Amino acid sequence: MAAAERVVVVGADAAGMSAAHQALRTAKAAGRRLDVVVLEKTSHTSYSACGIPYWIAGDVDSGASLVARTAEQHRAMGVDLRMDTSAVGLDLDARTVTAFRPDGVEEAIGFDQLVLATGALPRVPAWARTADGLPVPGVATLKTLDDGARWVAAVSGTDRPRRAVVVGGGYIGIETAEAFVRRGLATTLVTRREVMSSLDPDMGALVRKGMTDGGVDVVCSEEVDGLDVHRDGSVAAVRSGGDTFPADVVALGLGVLPATQLAVRAGLPVGAFGGLLPDDRQQVADGVWAAGDCCESRERLGGVRVYVPLGTHANKQGRVAGENLAGGDARFGGVVGTAVTQFSAGGSHVEVGRTGPTTEQATIGGARVVSLVTDSTTISGYMPGAAPIAVKVLARPDGRLVGVQIVGGPGSAKRVDSAAVALWYGASVGDVGGMDLAYAPPFSPVWDPVQIACRRLADRL
Amino acid sequence: MAAAERVVVVGADAAGMSAAHQALRTAKAAGRRLDVVVLEKTSHTSYSACGIPYWIAGDVDSGASLVARTAEQHRAMGVDLRMDTSAVGLDLDARTVTAFRPDGVEEAIGFDQLVLATGALPRVPAWARTADGLPVPGVATLKTLDDGARWVAAVSGTDRPRRAVVVGGGYIGIETAEAFVRRGLATTLVTRREVMSSLDPDMGALVRKGMTDGGVDVVCSEEVDGLDVHRDGSVAAVRSGGDTFPADVVALGLGVLPATQLAVRAGLPVGAFGGLLPDDRQQVADGVWAAGDCCESRERLGGVRVYVPLGTHANKQGRVAGENLAGGDARFGGVVGTAVTQFSAGGSHVEVGRTGPTTEQATIGGARVVSLVTDSTTISGYMPGAAPIAVKVLARPDGRLVGVQIVGGPGSAKRVDSAAVALWYGASVGDVGGMDLAYAPPFSPVWDPVQIACRRLADRL
Repeated sequence: MAAAERVVVVGADAAGMSAAHQALRTAKAAGRRLDVVVLEKTSHTSYSACGIPYWIAGDVDSGASLVARTAEQHRAMGVDLRMDTSAVGLDLDARTVTAFRPDGVEEAIGFDQLVLATGALPRVPAWARTADGLPVPGVATLKTLDDGARWVAAVSGTDRPRRAVVVGGGYIGIETAEAFVRRGLATTLVTRREVMSSLDPDMGALVRKGMTDGGVDVVCSEEVDGLDVHRDGSVAAVRSGGDTFPADVVALGLGVLPATQLAVRAGLPVGAFGGLLPDDRQQVADGVWAAGDCCESRERLGGVRVYVPLGTHANKQGRVAGENLAGGDARFGGVVGTAVTQFSAGGSHVEVGRTGPTTEQATIGGARVVSLVTDSTTISGYMPGAAPIAVKVLARPDGRLVGVQIVGGPGSAKRVDSAAVALWYGASVGDVGGMDLAYAPPFSPVWDPVQIACRRLADRL
Repeated sequence: MAAAERVVVVGADAAGMSAAHQALRTAKAAGRRLDVVVLEKTSHTSYSACGIPYWIAGDVDSGASLVARTAEQHRAMGVDLRMDTSAVGLDLDARTVTAFRPDGVEEAIGFDQLVLATGALPRVPAWARTADGLPVPGVATLKTLDDGARWVAAVSGTDRPRRAVVVGGGYIGIETAEAFVRRGLATTLVTRREVMSSLDPDMGALVRKGMTDGGVDVVCSEEVDGLDVHRDGSVAAVRSGGDTFPADVVALGLGVLPATQLAVRAGLPVGAFGGLLPDDRQQVADGVWAAGDCCESRERLGGVRVYVPLGTHANKQGRVAGENLAGGDARFGGVVGTAVTQFSAGGSHVEVGRTGPTTEQATIGGARVVSLVTDSTTISGYMPGAAPIAVKVLARPDGRLVGVQIVGGPGSAKRVDSAAVALWYGASVGDVGGMDLAYAPPFSPVWDPVQIACRRLADRL
């Protein structure tokens, strides 16, 4: 009997572990055996980074709750998972990964197939670092379970901070501001543009209003110039646009960058966003696969490369990579850019859903886009609990749906899914207006708000 | 200048008024003038029949709240709306409708174009009628605003009933049982099969459990044999399957039948469900159009005729008819069978969403269907408020999606929309598993429950 093929996976979060398990399943179904070795540089695996703001807010009682599967559970399922083990070298010709083990030993591990699932690193700008390159004390990102644990300790202790500044108005910024308000911190959010730059500015302004209503001091259109620090070196204030915002703590929600150093040093190409460039089988080179936040993705409709570091894609891409490396033939269908979030604190509740490019993104290169914002209610207007919902629809002049942006009360955000599926299939706004969506008074007006908005835009074309 | 074409619309609810207004809009856009006369036999127009259970429950404070547009508002928009006026005769050769006016006079109204939007009538079986053919006192349907007003008076008075029996386990039955429980009535629901026969029985059983948990005494698989009445002729009990269920009031939720007498007497054909048979332009004869609950619809994927009397379709079909009769060329895209409801009373909350045929419907003629029920949570499992959600997916052996049925806690029902759009486009279960649906911990697990269910079924094919 031939020796089993060895698969090495670098990174044990959503993409890597999805790949590992799918490879084992696909091989097993084909009656083949695979050795799957996974290297993870941290002490954590398969956790929900998206859950960290809710842990900080107190919704989730422990970091362990955010762990979908422990290292032991992965091992019990047949994965040779090596924690606290960094991949420090990659030789694609020799087919080896150099692993730096927790005992301090470097080990060359040969592979037949390699999966790069190295994830992403949060952006920490120069102004947020000390001379050593480390974040200024009191300033931190919210990416890892360890980040989360430090934030939870900070905001729930007896000596907790009074004033927080959140830098960045995207998903993490909004969710962190929510957590801070719910913890009773006086919270300022500083962002370079309107909040939620993944929405058009008119829709982002609705989110900003929801945050302001909930007690966040939102400062838009300002770059951060620097920090003031106390004598002990810890942060004292954030300076931005001529103003100074006192801060006992500063949370950085400035997005992430693909972690591709290992791959780049091995000679693999990266794209305009710095991410690896897998094909739709998630292959980047012969026997080398990549998945998750270290990759750029293909925008489904236009075919352009985009960088959308979300767990949903990481899971799917990991499965595709795992199936293909084990002899299957799966394809990643691309992304249309669907995402949701909310701000719910201080008596204000605003939900956000979006799919497709923004007007700014869609008109790069001079393409024409028409759009319309339609106000409606989340459920039948005569029902208790009916809340306002604004739906912005973007379409090409020929009626093809380009994107949908939703800002509204409880029950708004996930309605973007019907638009996302319509977009997936290249629907026109007229098509969406005619679809068979669900209605009953506690759930929707008789015309779903997304449909009303699409129909109204179709009527104007 | 030539005289304006005259359009006569019979019926002033969703379908008829959508047709009337769309005809005016389309004609206006084309620079033409139309006279639009609408005949309505009742005193009400454009009301939400679906809202009646919530009026009975006390969520809605008046029947007026359920009226989307009053007769005066319609008239102000240019419609010649004649209330309390029945269409009692139709001559397609002479192009006249005979109207019976509230002053007792019969009037022949000539038309160039006719829209039949005569709606549906609730089923009242022989056992529920007196010798005169009227419902036994204490027994009533829930179809019109007048029905609603009588129910509200009955359940909110000082001398209100203590014991109610609901006959029928479909949408109206469930929603009425909810209303009665919330009004404090001891409520029994009697249904011939499992509750929600628009679901597979295993999923219907989950709904039944939710209702039982909420205090409804659910009696399944029994026909009603008859009623016991008091000496004054009013209902005393419902007899079913050898048992007697005492009842001060009995609500009939046994579905509706298309109201097509006028059309049938005029020689227009009806289908197996008794409904008119419009083409996809909603035309039934030269210059004659039909829309709403008096029509059968085309099931989008298989092309077979179905009878789905819902306001969503009535509105869309009315618009299509109105646009076409005014010179446009709109098409009704068909139905895939999407619907939602809930039972929320007595501390129990269960939501239902469904799209596509049931297993029983899909296997008529011997077609093979594979299916799988997947249990998941409505939102990330570690979040407060995460509730169970069961998703049943039906597919053909080749993987094409056939239908999705959802039963679960708060936030479950409307998720069926993403499946409905996928079904609209003929997606496979594997396709659904790969789509870009929205995720954030307060809204969904990282894989949407519909996607998990589709993916799991795809893995088994």
